[in-house]
Amino acid sequence: MDNEKEGKKKRKIVLASGTFDLLHLGHVKYLEEAKRAGGRNAELIVIVARDSTVEKRKGKKPVISESQRRALVESLKVVDEAVLGYEVFSIEKVIQKIRPDVITVGYDQEGIDQTIRNYVRRKGLDIKVAKIGKFSKDELDSSSKIKRKIIEYREV
Amino acid sequence: MDNEKEGKKKRKIVLASGTFDLLHLGHVKYLEEAKRAGGRNAELIVIVARDSTVEKRKGKKPVISESQRRALVESLKVVDEAVLGYEVFSIEKVIQKIRPDVITVGYDQEGIDQTIRNYVRRKGLDIKVAKIGKFSKDELDSSSKIKRKIIEYREV
Repeated sequence: MDNEKEGKKKRKIVLASGTFDLLHLGHVKYLEEAKRAGGRNAELIVIVARDSTVEKRKGKKPVISESQRRALVESLKVVDEAVLGYEVFSIEKVIQKIRPDVITVGYDQEGIDQTIRNYVRRKGLDIKVAKIGKFSKDELDSSSKIKRKIIEYREV
Repeated sequence: MDNEKEGKKKRKIVLASGTFDLLHLGHVKYLEEAKRAGGRNAELIVIVARDSTVEKRKGKKPVISESQRRALVESLKVVDEAVLGYEVFSIEKVIQKIRPDVITVGYDQEGIDQTIRNYVRRKGLDIKVAKIGKFSKDELDSSSKIKRKIIEYREV
């Protein structure tokens, strides 16, 4: 924010999160839509879930390690910064650290959605919570589908 | 090149190519290294192999479709433009269209390497052919390895 000129609107910070295992175009479209929720010239910060968090939630680790998933997400044009999540999920710590203007939640993040909305309301914070739709015009827009196809065809 | 100022050095155009199935960090590092071969402020254009070309060469199509592979590669910060290859590979047509200053070849593109070097020498073209090393410090740096891991663990 140091390079801001007077009279210029502050860049809004948008916070998105996810696992981003086997990165595909659906992820990129999700992130592009998330950034748009912050208006013109928004800054997009992405929290990438840790291996341990995914294992706890889904019973198995992602195929790609957390450090590689983080670095790959940060190598996308649409992403300004990608950081690994906390070992123990804490919406409070995340908000205090990143201070977002907008928090986006994906179509498959129902539980997190309510947790965030409740927290923001309870604390009276000026944070918009934006739901991002699913982009599924093509059949290969989810990591699970990609894995299924690989297993079915045994294409090693 | 229209926005060039007098006295400013021309941006070098670097041409890289590949299939980029199941995009991973190894691909990004390959592309970053390729861009560096064009010096400061180079422009990186990437040719993404068509499904039919891969099928002819390897006997099977990539897991991800050509249009999605192209779009995902172009969504990377390091890439200025990604285009699909010709149905029938033609180094002559590629050079005439893109007019690269540098053509990079990967560690697994031995055959193409010689074809390009011979063509450039025969035609007396001012094009540098740069070999890009393999980045394999991590075990998940190739699409084949990712596929093997998915099949072994049946992680759908």
